[in-house]
Amino acid sequence: MPQRILVINPNSTQSVTDHIDDAVQPLRMEGGPEIECMTLAEGPAGIESQADVESVVQPISQVVRTRDNDTDAFVIACYSDPGLHAAREATRRRVFGIAESGMLTALTLGERFAVISILAASVPRHLRYVRSLGLDSRLAGDLPIGLGVTELSDDSKVMERMTAVGGRLRDEFGAHAIVMGCAGMARFRDRLEDALDIPVVEPTQAAVTMAIGAARL
Amino acid sequence: MPQRILVINPNSTQSVTDHIDDAVQPLRMEGGPEIECMTLAEGPAGIESQADVESVVQPISQVVRTRDNDTDAFVIACYSDPGLHAAREATRRRVFGIAESGMLTALTLGERFAVISILAASVPRHLRYVRSLGLDSRLAGDLPIGLGVTELSDDSKVMERMTAVGGRLRDEFGAHAIVMGCAGMARFRDRLEDALDIPVVEPTQAAVTMAIGAARL
Amino acid sequence: MPQRILVINPNSTQSVTDHIDDAVQPLRMEGGPEIECMTLAEGPAGIESQADVESVVQPISQVVRTRDNDTDAFVIACYSDPGLHAAREATRRRVFGIAESGMLTALTLGERFAVISILAASVPRHLRYVRSLGLDSRLAGDLPIGLGVTELSDDSKVMERMTAVGGRLRDEFGAHAIVMGCAGMARFRDRLEDALDIPVVEPTQAAVTMAIGAARL
Amino acid sequence: MPQRILVINPNSTQSVTDHIDDAVQPLRMEGGPEIECMTLAEGPAGIESQADVESVVQPISQVVRTRDNDTDAFVIACYSDPGLHAAREATRRRVFGIAESGMLTALTLGERFAVISILAASVPRHLRYVRSLGLDSRLAGDLPIGLGVTELSDDSKVMERMTAVGGRLRDEFGAHAIVMGCAGMARFRDRLEDALDIPVVEPTQAAVTMAIGAARL
Amino acid sequence: MPQRILVINPNSTQSVTDHIDDAVQPLRMEGGPEIECMTLAEGPAGIESQADVESVVQPISQVVRTRDNDTDAFVIACYSDPGLHAAREATRRRVFGIAESGMLTALTLGERFAVISILAASVPRHLRYVRSLGLDSRLAGDLPIGLGVTELSDDSKVMERMTAVGGRLRDEFGAHAIVMGCAGMARFRDRLEDALDIPVVEPTQAAVTMAIGAARL
Amino acid sequence: MPQRILVINPNSTQSVTDHIDDAVQPLRMEGGPEIECMTLAEGPAGIESQADVESVVQPISQVVRTRDNDTDAFVIACYSDPGLHAAREATRRRVFGIAESGMLTALTLGERFAVISILAASVPRHLRYVRSLGLDSRLAGDLPIGLGVTELSDDSKVMERMTAVGGRLRDEFGAHAIVMGCAGMARFRDRLEDALDIPVVEPTQAAVTMAIGAARL
Repeated sequence: MPQRILVINPNSTQSVTDHIDDAVQPLRMEGGPEIECMTLAEGPAGIESQADVESVVQPISQVVRTRDNDTDAFVIACYSDPGLHAAREATRRRVFGIAESGMLTALTLGERFAVISILAASVPRHLRYVRSLGLDSRLAGDLPIGLGVTELSDDSKVMERMTAVGGRLRDEFGAHAIVMGCAGMARFRDRLEDALDIPVVEPTQAAVTMAIGAARL
Repeated sequence: MPQRILVINPNSTQSVTDHIDDAVQPLRMEGGPEIECMTLAEGPAGIESQADVESVVQPISQVVRTRDNDTDAFVIACYSDPGLHAAREATRRRVFGIAESGMLTALTLGERFAVISILAASVPRHLRYVRSLGLDSRLAGDLPIGLGVTELSDDSKVMERMTAVGGRLRDEFGAHAIVMGCAGMARFRDRLEDALDIPVVEPTQAAVTMAIGAARL
Repeated sequence: MPQRILVINPNSTQSVTDHIDDAVQPLRMEGGPEIECMTLAEGPAGIESQADVESVVQPISQVVRTRDNDTDAFVIACYSDPGLHAAREATRRRVFGIAESGMLTALTLGERFAVISILAASVPRHLRYVRSLGLDSRLAGDLPIGLGVTELSDDSKVMERMTAVGGRLRDEFGAHAIVMGCAGMARFRDRLEDALDIPVVEPTQAAVTMAIGAARL
Repeated sequence: MPQRILVINPNSTQSVTDHIDDAVQPLRMEGGPEIECMTLAEGPAGIESQADVESVVQPISQVVRTRDNDTDAFVIACYSDPGLHAAREATRRRVFGIAESGMLTALTLGERFAVISILAASVPRHLRYVRSLGLDSRLAGDLPIGLGVTELSDDSKVMERMTAVGGRLRDEFGAHAIVMGCAGMARFRDRLEDALDIPVVEPTQAAVTMAIGAARL
Repeated sequence: MPQRILVINPNSTQSVTDHIDDAVQPLRMEGGPEIECMTLAEGPAGIESQADVESVVQPISQVVRTRDNDTDAFVIACYSDPGLHAAREATRRRVFGIAESGMLTALTLGERFAVISILAASVPRHLRYVRSLGLDSRLAGDLPIGLGVTELSDDSKVMERMTAVGGRLRDEFGAHAIVMGCAGMARFRDRLEDALDIPVVEPTQAAVTMAIGAARL
Repeated sequence: MPQRILVINPNSTQSVTDHIDDAVQPLRMEGGPEIECMTLAEGPAGIESQADVESVVQPISQVVRTRDNDTDAFVIACYSDPGLHAAREATRRRVFGIAESGMLTALTLGERFAVISILAASVPRHLRYVRSLGLDSRLAGDLPIGLGVTELSDDSKVMERMTAVGGRLRDEFGAHAIVMGCAGMARFRDRLEDALDIPVVEPTQAAVTMAIGAARL
């Protein structure tokens, strides 16, 4: 039967899901897995605080349990990788978190990588996570652009800030690759890579790439 | 006004709360903070799986928010430290997790420490956590006794297994101190330390100790 | 124009290339990149010593330069990842080494991974490499089966040894996932995973998976 | 019999001992251990050089041996933790060093901590020590205010410098918590925490907190 | 029979070999090993890219094999330590790489060391190498002066840049010792140490020092 | 004027000094530095406890200050490297500790090294030290032979135990090189290396080697 990858946007902002869907379009191949992107209706508008992260854990596990029999691999499309381990416990299918996949992919692109986050409050959570993955010796830095998830609609302001922060990470912190630290940043990847002239990883693309392998193998 | 430390047992097994209460009795001092131990009625009987851990996160945050105005410091008395960061976000009071406090205390007792866990399934979760704390170079090992939280009532079987596992951690893995990896093991500390002849940390005692400082300062 | 991934087997043993080709067959999708597997005729029969590794570095760079204009991504299919950095310098296309990709993929499968190598002499080289990648805190162990690349044709002996070594890595070293440390082991993945009951990564599959993303994005 | 914690100021400056005594006053509880603060008469006026550190090691061990039968726990109140391991060898009682305890406590307050030291010459010694404790991945930085122990009497100058250095550690180095790197800074804790708006640990308070637990358990 | 240390300059620039020969002159002792410095005629003028590094690996192994019977220890005098492991496989004699020896020596001189490199492109390669050696926690930084090997002939420009970069590594990055990251910088050691007032290691001197021990023991 | 290296045996056992003197004999070269070995008369017979280590710190600093004007480099010949940092503060000359030098030398000999210690009580002290040096990722293990310094006179017993322990470190712990963890073991190096068939570092030889470079440069 046809294979399917389910990409779960745990925030309830449909435009973020739409942007994710656009970002993964190049990964849709005629003979390849269907890539279905869904919005978690019960999620907050943006996942910014630890409480937001926690609030979507059980709903994500519920989706995973429900869709287990018609999905080959899951992607949790929020840079906090909320509920990743609970989801992995809930199914025998492979589950990918976009932060984990994004960072692993960045490791193939440069000696050290850095993360552009949305809010300062996200950074300590990211640092804890990077350390839990044992990847901290490869992290050059993590800096925020100071905009919440729902503020990412102002394209030129976002590009301006991402370019400034990315340049600082590249020049002062020694980053050789960038990971965009929010699924809602997806549509900026190409422009940012042109602006910074170092590789930029869109983490949902990274996770879906790994998921394609999981689904096919 | 009198100070108070609230120790939250997130599993719903009253006997575990009772044993925790006994364990912290020596820390009750006239003129010192009241130490109140509560059972989270909506928690599972034992916290063993990742799903169990996740299920108590929001209830713990709720307790913390509710009790914020009459409590000086909180202790989450489950070795998975569930919801520690969510709880810290929910209050300006200090919040301690018994695993974090237990391990930090063990660092003052020996060059390397080891953890005796209840189930094999807990161990990967603990290893991730130790790494997230940056303490992995001090961890000698983490081995399970193969009993669930609610099976800890068979005293002699538990002592036998803890002594065997602890001896292995000491002799084969090079541990100089042990941290008991489940709040429900509290009553075995003294006997285990006698049996192993190396320091044994009861993590709830360690956390309440740190909480006393937080409450008084 | 159609996309292409070029998988380079740097040893000159055609049967190894054939096995690699079989291993990546599930990753061939209609509408997806062509996956071409080639044998480096000037390579040694097996890459076992450091001298063997060094001998294929410049030939690999030469292939990469020659094929740059009709290939979207390259995979170096030898667990020593020979010439990976030289190849990355030689082209703007993405280049993947199967050891690096295999280990990064293993990180999504378990808290710690281990490697089954062919010869004892390979192990120090692998350990240096894991450390250079900053992944050493996630490595549980690396043990050899004591057979050279060209001896991998005796199926039952190889399976027997891989199962024994894998079991030891799982039970004594605490591995939660295995990476097969030689491209020539490719055909054993499924059987080994069944025998060990923990995830087993075939590293060429892991690298081609990442390469598909690189080619499509 | 009543419990006692002996806090040893290894420098011979009585005003430092007086400030330490004030700092630990909140930890005195009617039913709790007596907290006795003593000055090591034979110590130097300030412990600033490695030679100073070494000069107090044997005197501290001597105090510990002498007071072993009427003391339940010892605290060495100098940020170099001089003679900590010799003291631990000299008694079965628990011995705490304020640097170790201060840093362990800081780990419960923020994702990364930083130290404000007195002199530049102290910093390499601190860095060696942090690494020996395995805590270096949690250290954001360590900067000096450029004043010796006996120069800490100029309140406004000290506050000005500590605030400037602390702000730099917070803003440039990414510290989420500060540890004051000299027992003689004790009285500045509250003011510094107000000024910096991040948690500030007074390390003698941290050590006495841990010592209370050791004495009571 | 008389002992000999063979120092191989893998680039073909005779003046670099001459400067290395001058640098090791103080290590020539009447009763000590002969120190022979040779130029690898087939090497590139300067080793700057990864391709340059790879191009000299097999020639170096060939020299080592050829000279094995009349040489007691070998030194590879290029800061990329090209072919170090292949050379060690090719002989039972001891082989030293100047980067490895330089960094090991720097560890005895200060709490953290930094490297002054020639080109920005060298830095990622160095960082990978430091990590492979497990020395990354002692590395304060690595910055380039932006001059190629063959541009090192302009004495005053090189001194000016090395002093500026070294000062930055000392003051901003916290280095307590410097390792000069190119054999061609050899003649600047004394002047740079005077200018920076912190120890400066000339890595070929460090490697020959270790080689003398290897030859004599 | 002639150069001199002063090797200080901080224990008062003359036979240990005699064995050290024999061990460094190959490093005496005509035209090279004089290598003077002295016994610290006021030291304990053997340095085994932390108290022993502390007891020789100030006497060593005193020797260094006294001999500063006629010595070019100092070696502290006790595997605890007692007073190394105090000595470095006391003189502008280079000071080497045999443990530090021994381990740094071992890093050039194998991917991971292990230490054969005399007593179990030494091991925690060594582990702390290795971590303070940032070398812990290269340490395979550290095991004791269970004999005190003054018991090392029974040659066949010592060889038997060192061979057993060394073999265990090689086969079970994955060591590729051994460092002998006590200056008093010096005379066993050659026999042990023959028995174990992996490189064995005699740490005083390693330190004097580095000191020769320091004296000559």
